[in-house]
Amino acid sequence: MPITTVGLDADDTLWHNETIFRMTQARFRELMADHAEPEFLDARLAEVERRNLALYGYGVKGFTLSLIETAMDITGGEPPGRIIADILDAGREMLRHPVEPLPGAEEAVHELAAHYTLVLITKGDLLHQEQKLAASGLGELFRGVEIVSEKDAAGYARIFARHGDGGPEQAAMAGNSLRSDVLPALEAGAFAAHIPYHVTWAHESADPPTGHPRFAELPSIRDLPAWVESLA
Amino acid sequence: MPITTVGLDADDTLWHNETIFRMTQARFRELMADHAEPEFLDARLAEVERRNLALYGYGVKGFTLSLIETAMDITGGEPPGRIIADILDAGREMLRHPVEPLPGAEEAVHELAAHYTLVLITKGDLLHQEQKLAASGLGELFRGVEIVSEKDAAGYARIFARHGDGGPEQAAMAGNSLRSDVLPALEAGAFAAHIPYHVTWAHESADPPTGHPRFAELPSIRDLPAWVESLA
Repeated sequence: MPITTVGLDADDTLWHNETIFRMTQARFRELMADHAEPEFLDARLAEVERRNLALYGYGVKGFTLSLIETAMDITGGEPPGRIIADILDAGREMLRHPVEPLPGAEEAVHELAAHYTLVLITKGDLLHQEQKLAASGLGELFRGVEIVSEKDAAGYARIFARHGDGGPEQAAMAGNSLRSDVLPALEAGAFAAHIPYHVTWAHESADPPTGHPRFAELPSIRDLPAWVESLA
Repeated sequence: MPITTVGLDADDTLWHNETIFRMTQARFRELMADHAEPEFLDARLAEVERRNLALYGYGVKGFTLSLIETAMDITGGEPPGRIIADILDAGREMLRHPVEPLPGAEEAVHELAAHYTLVLITKGDLLHQEQKLAASGLGELFRGVEIVSEKDAAGYARIFARHGDGGPEQAAMAGNSLRSDVLPALEAGAFAAHIPYHVTWAHESADPPTGHPRFAELPSIRDLPAWVESLA
């Protein structure tokens, strides 16, 4: 059965994302330097983010609110005003940050689009993801854009049923997160490739599947078109 | 040509939303009572929201960030910590607020679902809208849920092409916002009913169409099933 549909993750698969969060976190450490050691601050922020995840979901706005909450916690509820102002600025800068495609991503997407139905499947703030896709110049190459609050097997099954003739069995998913892009896509019956990014948010980490017949680990998105072709 | 598909707005059409924002705004006024007159505060908040709309979009998280920014502005950049803490709390309470269906909404949705393909078409935070739909108990009655960053004619055309046999010409849209639910749906070629809510966010106000053959103003969602039936 030939592959008809390829699903692609966006953040840290097509363009940089986690590095922008890490840069903001580094700025937050500097901003809070008089109030907390970096390791302590990072641990508190991670705890606040984890606590807020079910309510805020993924994306820059929830992250900004979690930074403010962490600053409150660390300063006994009385942060200097300039810290709040700087966090609000940092959040807005993240939302305005230019899209930086990963090396080889644009070529790979063009090559895949010539042979398969492409679907972008991503989490995060709806408006921000749409803005990033528009800024990337790749939007026209995708037949569908699916922005979801969580990536699970039922979601992949639904998306691949909608955007392909053969459902998940004739679909391949690729992304940098084992937890979100690979494991649930395999569970749905699709093929899945893990293309690691150099940093991974702790929340997204998981163990890779061992010896799974529909799984591959690829060093770069440049390798994706050849792998998909090999599945035919 | 019979109607096959009915699109429904969610916030302030199926359940209360704007009143929850207004309640939070009233709480904000009290919180800031020592720093600003209510009218001045409201005007500043409206200005901050308008400035942030393109970046934050619609929804509670962006509103919470705008409240914090307004508090910063009003206090010369040094708000008492308890004000920030209270705004963060208010934002979380809005996200956790129980869904309160509008009178007659549940009956109307059940009645419509028996005869037409129903699609929920809404703006706002993706995760929060999904949570509200799940909490409403109405999710199963909708064939499709379309959460969009902005409601325009092209979007309605695409959605009604996807969820109906006859496209916009055989679809009807209903909602409380002339600007978002009625005018662009009419422009796309669909029928559209305006069902006013008792408060409207200034950003959503617009003039009603006059003498448009595919437009109706309905006093309540209870009147929607009979109106849709009358279009056949």
